[in-house]
Order: sequence, then structure tokens, then C-alpha cells
Amino acid sequence: MPVTAEVRSALTNQTGRHVTITAIAREAGVSVSTVSKVLNGRADVAEGTRSRVEELLAKHAYPRARRRGSDPAGLIDIVFDELDSPWAVEIIRGAEEVAHAAGTGTVVSAIHARSEPARQWLDNLERRRSEGVVLVVDELTAAQRARLQALDVPCIVIDPRGEPDPQVPSIGAANWAGGQAATRHLIELGHRRIAIISGPAGMLCSRARLDGYRGALEGAGLPADPALVRHGDFHHESGYLQAARLLELPDPPTAIFAGSDQQAFGACEAARERGLRIPQDLSIVGFDDLPVARWFSPPLTTVRQPLAEMGSLATRLLFRLSRGETLETHHVELATELVIRESTAPPPAPARP
Amino acid sequence: MPVTAEVRSALTNQTGRHVTITAIAREAGVSVSTVSKVLNGRADVAEGTRSRVEELLAKHAYPRARRRGSDPAGLIDIVFDELDSPWAVEIIRGAEEVAHAAGTGTVVSAIHARSEPARQWLDNLERRRSEGVVLVVDELTAAQRARLQALDVPCIVIDPRGEPDPQVPSIGAANWAGGQAATRHLIELGHRRIAIISGPAGMLCSRARLDGYRGALEGAGLPADPALVRHGDFHHESGYLQAARLLELPDPPTAIFAGSDQQAFGACEAARERGLRIPQDLSIVGFDDLPVARWFSPPLTTVRQPLAEMGSLATRLLFRLSRGETLETHHVELATELVIRESTAPPPAPARP
Repeated sequence: MPVTAEVRSALTNQTGRHVTITAIAREAGVSVSTVSKVLNGRADVAEGTRSRVEELLAKHAYPRARRRGSDPAGLIDIVFDELDSPWAVEIIRGAEEVAHAAGTGTVVSAIHARSEPARQWLDNLERRRSEGVVLVVDELTAAQRARLQALDVPCIVIDPRGEPDPQVPSIGAANWAGGQAATRHLIELGHRRIAIISGPAGMLCSRARLDGYRGALEGAGLPADPALVRHGDFHHESGYLQAARLLELPDPPTAIFAGSDQQAFGACEAARERGLRIPQDLSIVGFDDLPVARWFSPPLTTVRQPLAEMGSLATRLLFRLSRGETLETHHVELATELVIRESTAPPPAPARP
Repeated sequence: MPVTAEVRSALTNQTGRHVTITAIAREAGVSVSTVSKVLNGRADVAEGTRSRVEELLAKHAYPRARRRGSDPAGLIDIVFDELDSPWAVEIIRGAEEVAHAAGTGTVVSAIHARSEPARQWLDNLERRRSEGVVLVVDELTAAQRARLQALDVPCIVIDPRGEPDPQVPSIGAANWAGGQAATRHLIELGHRRIAIISGPAGMLCSRARLDGYRGALEGAGLPADPALVRHGDFHHESGYLQAARLLELPDPPTAIFAGSDQQAFGACEAARERGLRIPQDLSIVGFDDLPVARWFSPPLTTVRQPLAEMGSLATRLLFRLSRGETLETHHVELATELVIRESTAPPPAPARP
């Protein structure tokens, strides 16, 4: 998904010549007005037709004019899958601060994938003529990607699900280092049976945190017991369920590193229901450092992910792309930081036989 | 702050005649162009001049044309004091759902009162030509109110701090009923020493909840001990501090009704630090039912404030005002609901002498 004017002009330079809309229309076997609709990101084009035309436009590096409105509304968009997490407000807060200072409005949308046709948010986006879009979504469909590309608006992805796409700039956090720091902290407290409840196995951030955990265990000469590695979905319920299973093991862990604060809260609840005190009987570390982490009882030890800063940086980069600047890199990782509070302590002394 | 075309045309009808800009300018002792600037909501007018002109415009019921843009961007604005609470994302979620379905973008702003001139968000608002503004702010300054009035954009206030202004439609929650329900629940569990950590004494919602608490005690024939009535600021820290003081009393409460979930979390932490178990040793009820309330350990009994629904309703009412409709009432209260979870239980048996 090439998103910068630079990328596009680079393509044009590669081929060194311009094609006409008529030629594209002829090759695609569609009318000129259909090609024009695709160029203008209009919704009333069949998906198959759109992708065929897009392919030809890309193949011939058809030079597209930037579709900025004549009356720039001064808006950026932030798009989430759902607005159902305290996570979201942190990113909004960071983005709004930068946008606000620039006199730009921050439009917040949710894709609502389950409740309505996925196209609607793109329709709305098109009507608004946004200066750029911050995507905080798990995955776009091919049709959504094509449509977004046709709209020709700069995009930045926060926390990409998979490997960062070299053509779409993205911002992440140092997940591997965070996983290392959390696990080392538990090892230094004296824990030997350390479990991890990671995020979904397919997500880049989960894999990086899990590798950090394994690396820290290995660095301390500790075995990695596969029974202590679990995957959740970042939500409270999965933390609760996976922790319940871990605590039922014949040789349960004395510490759990959770893939998100919400999973850590779920793990705390599973421990409480079994009469285990935190941190005396079980240590728990989260990931994110949502504001609620310090309000928790006990206040949660967690790996701080700089969500607000990720929102701010995404907005700054969007402004640069919107001005036609080229970014130095297509992926930036911001540092994570272990915040030690009261949910971690040395493991309980082993019961005497 | 009259915000509807109706209110304004009613005013015009009352006086039954039109004045000219020239007459207003003469009476205010300013130039015609200054009056015109005020009418257009321009920023480059001294505040004193603006308010003098606004007063005269109101006095003579000068009929203002609706300043909708020629190219409606399809935007509404939601303005918060700060984007620092999970509270905010609930309101955004509700508003976005309604706006999104209508093809309208939801622009989220924070006033950032402490960090920059208060005028900036209004400057941004003006440039955007919003269809309407949902205000979720403690209080506007007189200058901000005048400026907003001059922009002539429909406004709805969520959870007004003081008595609802008959000229600005507002949405609240049934705070008195919520205070009653929480207190009755504790009384029915057998509690007799019930404390309240309310919000700021000057805020309407705090006063209503406190009256509901007092009414429930009185209805059960229980005395209201002034030592058990405390005021916080809705944040975690004040819940922590006030609970700590309550628990140091010679005859401490066996239950605390907190004015917000965040204050309830603070109270839980003060209890935990004293080795008190919740709910066995101390019952705690919150107010709001933020998503984090059910993730808490133990899950928090709380009064559900329908924040997302308040955001949705505000957006629907804005659309109606924007179409020139008249609302049936200037203040709507949505029902609150007691959600019983695990932070409340019968009081501990009294220690034997």
C-alpha cells in the first residue's frame, strides 16, 4: 500500500513515462468513467473491477494528483476496531495533544466490524477529506486496503499485527525488551516457576514479548517449561481462564507475566478466588501500564507501553507525510519501561514436607 | 446561552422588530466591522468589546443567520477538560456510534486548561464548522460561553456541574436515585455505619447522590453521622485519602459508598494497606460502572451511569438541533442502575468484648 507522494513519484520515475486514463480503461476492459471513479476513490465500483484497475494503475505508475480538498478542514482520523478499551483513550490523548496544537481536529472512528458493512468508515473518511489516518486496527481486508490506497491519504499504523509493511509507516513499542525486563525482574526476586499468558500467537507483539521471556529464562539458566506458556487475547477473561488453568497445575507457577494489564487483572481475580494473596502467594506482572494499573489493589507492576507517545508520534509523522516529506524509516519502536509497584514480591517459602 | 434557532426567533418575536448592525455599533460605541466580527465569531475582538456587543445583540434580539458552512464537513465535536479518564472513552464510544452511522465524524478535543490559552479549542472549532458540540467540561468561562454563542453552533452539555441552564440542553444521570439504591443495598445487607465519599460539594451530581444517601438512611430510621460524610474530587487519590481517614475513626464505617469507581478503587487500596479484606471486613460501592469495575479484584459493586448512552443521546439531540428542531425539554436524566458484584457483603460480626 504505497502511501506517500514520494513512493508514487518514485514509481513514476522508474517507468519514465505517463499512461492515459483511456489506455488504462482499454486494458482493463472498462469505461473511462470507471477508471476515473477508482482514481477518485468512489464507492460505486465493484471490488473486482477496482482491484483490476488499481493493478494497472500501479503497473503503469499512473501519476495521481493529491486529492486534498480546496477547503482543508484540518482533520486527522484515528481508526480503531472498537472503542472498548482504556487503551484507546491513551492513544487518542497523545494524538489529540499534537493535532490540537496544530489547529487540527482529531476524528475518532471505530470500524465496528461486526455490526455494519466495513465500507462505511471509509465512506465517511472520504467525505471528510482527512489529512491523514492513524490506523489502530488488527487487520484491514484487501478491499479496505485498496480503497484506502485509492483515497490517497497518508496512513500510519500503530502496533501492526504482523511484520511491519515497508510501504506503510508504522509505530510500535519495544516488546521484546519489555518481555525481557518483566521476566528478569521476577527472576531477580527469586522466582523459578514463571508462567506467561501472552497475546494471540499470530501477533508480532506477542511473539516478541514471548521471545523476551524465553531469552531472560535462558540467560538465567532456567528451563522454559512449555506447560507455563499460554496464549490469551489480551482481554480480562482470557487472563482469568489461563491463570485458573496455570494455578490448577500439579506444580503451579509462583509468578505470572501477563500480555496486557487486562489479562493481569483477570489473573489476579483467578488468584483471589483461590484464596491466594498477591504478591505474598503469587506475583503478577502486566503489560501496558494503563492508568488503571496504578489504581489496582495492589497497584500493578507492569511494563509501560508509551501509548500516548505513540499517538503523538503517529500524528507528527502524519503531518510530515501530508507535507510531502519522506520519513527516515518505515518502522519506529518506542522504548518500554518496567514499572515496579506492589503486585510482585519474592516467592513464598516452599511448604515443608 | 441561547443555542437554537427557535430560541432566537422566539426572542425576535418578543421584541417584534429588527435592529441594524449600525444601530448596535452606535450603541456599543464600536465600528460596524467590529460588530460584524463578533457576529462571525472571529477571535480578533477584545473580550470586553465582545461581551458588550453580545449583550446588545441579545438585548435587541438581533436575528443571526445560521453559520453552516457551504461544504458541510459532517462533523460533531466532543470537548472534554482533559482526556485522562476511562470515563471519556465511554462517552466517545456512544457518540461515535450514532455519528458514524449518520456519516458524521466525531472530533474529540480537550480544553487543556492548564497548558495553553483556553481560546485555542474554540479557534479550532470555528475553523471546522462543526454541526454541533457536546460539552463534557466542568465549567466554561464567560468569554468561552460568549464565543461559543457567537459561533452559533448547537450545544449539548453532558453532566452539567450546576443547575441545568434552561437555555442549553443538557443530559445527566439519575444521581439521586443512584445514591438511594447504593445506600439501600448496604442497609439491606445489615450495615449501620455507612460512610459516603462524595464528589465536590459544589457539583449538582454530588449533591444529588448525597441527598439520595441521606434519604435512604432516614427511610431506614438510621442516623446520619456527619463524621461519615466526606468529599473528594472523583479521582483515585481522594478516595484513598478520605477512606484512610474514615478507617482511622474510633468507630469506623463497615461500608463506604464512593462517588466514583476511581474513588472506590482508592478506598479499596486504603483498606488493603490496613489488612482489611473486601468485602469480608469492609464493603465498598462505586459509581459509574466503568469497564474496569468488573475487572477489579474483587469485581466492584457500583451504580451504573449510562455514559455511552449519554454520549449517544447527546449526538441524537445535536442532530435534531442542527436540523432546526425544538427539543421537548432542556434537561434529560437517564436511569442509573445498581450492579451488585463482589465488593459488598454483610458487615463483619462485632468483636466480642
